Amino acid sequence: MAVRIDEERLRARLTELAEIGRTPDGGVSRFSYGTEHAAAVRRVARWMREAGAEPAVDVWGNLFGVVPGEAGALPPIAAGSHLDTVPNGGKFDGALGVLAAVEAAAALRDAGVRPKHTLLLVAFAEEEGTSYGVGCLGSLGVVGRAPALEGLHDAAGQSAADALRAFDTGLPRRSMPMPMAAYLELHIEQGPVLAARETPLAAVDAIVGIARAVFEFTGEANHAGTTPMDMRRDALWGAADLVGAVRTIVRDTGGRAVGTVGRLELSPGATNVVPGRAAATVELRSSDARLLESLRERVESDGRACAARYGLALEVRAWRSDTPVPLNRSIHDEIVAAAGDLGWPIVTMSSWAGHDAKILGALVPTGMIFVPSVGGVSHSPREQTAWDDVARGAQVLCRAMERLDRSQAA
Amino acid sequence: MAVRIDEERLRARLTELAEIGRTPDGGVSRFSYGTEHAAAVRRVARWMREAGAEPAVDVWGNLFGVVPGEAGALPPIAAGSHLDTVPNGGKFDGALGVLAAVEAAAALRDAGVRPKHTLLLVAFAEEEGTSYGVGCLGSLGVVGRAPALEGLHDAAGQSAADALRAFDTGLPRRSMPMPMAAYLELHIEQGPVLAARETPLAAVDAIVGIARAVFEFTGEANHAGTTPMDMRRDALWGAADLVGAVRTIVRDTGGRAVGTVGRLELSPGATNVVPGRAAATVELRSSDARLLESLRERVESDGRACAARYGLALEVRAWRSDTPVPLNRSIHDEIVAAAGDLGWPIVTMSSWAGHDAKILGALVPTGMIFVPSVGGVSHSPREQTAWDDVARGAQVLCRAMERLDRSQAA
Repeated sequence: MAVRIDEERLRARLTELAEIGRTPDGGVSRFSYGTEHAAAVRRVARWMREAGAEPAVDVWGNLFGVVPGEAGALPPIAAGSHLDTVPNGGKFDGALGVLAAVEAAAALRDAGVRPKHTLLLVAFAEEEGTSYGVGCLGSLGVVGRAPALEGLHDAAGQSAADALRAFDTGLPRRSMPMPMAAYLELHIEQGPVLAARETPLAAVDAIVGIARAVFEFTGEANHAGTTPMDMRRDALWGAADLVGAVRTIVRDTGGRAVGTVGRLELSPGATNVVPGRAAATVELRSSDARLLESLRERVESDGRACAARYGLALEVRAWRSDTPVPLNRSIHDEIVAAAGDLGWPIVTMSSWAGHDAKILGALVPTGMIFVPSVGGVSHSPREQTAWDDVARGAQVLCRAMERLDRSQAA
Repeated sequence: MAVRIDEERLRARLTELAEIGRTPDGGVSRFSYGTEHAAAVRRVARWMREAGAEPAVDVWGNLFGVVPGEAGALPPIAAGSHLDTVPNGGKFDGALGVLAAVEAAAALRDAGVRPKHTLLLVAFAEEEGTSYGVGCLGSLGVVGRAPALEGLHDAAGQSAADALRAFDTGLPRRSMPMPMAAYLELHIEQGPVLAARETPLAAVDAIVGIARAVFEFTGEANHAGTTPMDMRRDALWGAADLVGAVRTIVRDTGGRAVGTVGRLELSPGATNVVPGRAAATVELRSSDARLLESLRERVESDGRACAARYGLALEVRAWRSDTPVPLNRSIHDEIVAAAGDLGWPIVTMSSWAGHDAKILGALVPTGMIFVPSVGGVSHSPREQTAWDDVARGAQVLCRAMERLDRSQAA
């Protein structure tokens, strides 16, 4: 009997879950350890039970459901994503991967498949980092890399530790089983690539590394009238050239990197005053660690040239880098094979956004499946994925879990 | 007998006046119609009386002192500047021109000179526009161009009309005599030109016109990771190119104009989001009205090219222009001759900043004298002019008044 996920139920549950934390704009605000998050955990835990999984919550507020495998000794095959959202975010980001995993477990059971591995259905907390400023806090906790919860505070000053003590889900507190045989995450692409290629599916080969720094140019604030052009040291001149340099340097990679200046702050910032200080953020992303490092060096050296051109000082502050994470090649191939089994085209691409899979991927054999985002829009009430694409993604996840259960046990 | 201003007294009074509104940084905050302004008016009115002038205040809070001339029918020769300051400003900006005019009147009287013209010593209010957002409010009032005082409000919400009703100087309220035969203003340059030329004096030939607009580029805010470079419409790309275009266009004039982008605001303004909107202020200044107009057109057309290059929309909002004001040629020549009489070098230059002389100059034959600003610094506690330069400026003002009294009466 063919294993088929229940497309209608998946759609209904995604819609129902989006009511928890629904905003007036039609978006979703569901912040970690808050009442909406607790309500979402209780709802999803109920669906996990219906799928044959026993739910619990760990010390980082991650929800997980365990479906014991036939051969109890095999480490679990995990699948899931996260339940928290950005402020006024969409209903697919995170929720899709969680609910598709639940549907996959239900579909396998309903089809009479008895996996050899334990199945682990996962709904991580605080992936977005909205409440405590640390992205992927829940998955970092699972792999032993989370900062101490007492030291993390939300905007109201409450610590994550206190918030978790008050986090009332009605579920037992347990540790998530580790190690895992595999971790699979279905997620919306959050970009325009699949839509532009008119392809419904991607298997992810790597999650990009990110390098960020603040470039602070210092010249001299002066009267915008009385200071002749050839006596100016206008900090914005340097920062504006840097914007062009980042674009040019990154474009030269032919699509292997992206680079963004997203913030630019001038001081004093008055119409009639020559800017004395300009602080620009530079963010670079690539799935190629050596390329990322060379881009970082080139942007910094070009930045110094931009400063020197106008007699400015440049301080490059606090490069924060995290390296690219290549995903597991065998799992990638199983995902591609799963799509092939179902007769659907699939491409391979990198993930340009961070995910819990990036954290798990450093420790656990990990794979990701992408489905298209309409218009590439995400983190917005306008976030949308066609229901056919939602169903295909969940079906490929289910099929990949089935294949992995067999191949990993072999 | 040679007419000599009292350098020591001028220095002492500039120092004393700077105590009224003194800030912890050693700067001056003296805001129009406030208690410090009223105290400064009372102090200067006393010095006017000592110089033989009868003080009064007009409905815009301008202080003036009248020294009746020998030939009562001749319209007055006016000299002065303003008493208000920017927040934490310097002790020379405005105050120098007011106190030098008082010293000039005293010096003429002490030397036994009996001017044929009435002398009018003026201390305008609200030249900086700090309190009510309208620069040169006092002088605009005198020439009949001030907006209604009921409609102007300070940061605390009080109207200028109410503030003026409470403005307690103990002086009679009268109208400033109009028309005037001439208006002379001694002022610090507020720029680095005289210091760089090692010249102690300038006669001003014109006050620059200013054109200002906001250039708002609109693209699309997008995820800084998942949006490929060739699918971005980054509003900052257009704005950064505009910064370079303004610099290039203005530099091509060979010193006949200046141009500044002093504010640049990005939206949403996050490290990991492609800017969807970038709003830049452009300010252009020139003493040549046709050049200013052509620069304005060229910056706008280059701005449109910057937008088109990246698929952005551009809205150019609210060009606000005021035209350059050429100062009176004969008065300029009298100032140059006065410096020659005293054996001091003097150059001719334009004023790149606005002054009350710009307002008066549209209606009254007007001249300005500049003295050097150390390092070109102004609007700052670090504003400084050498005492020798202060004395020279006041002496040239006095001599120019004496010469004008004779030439205008001829």
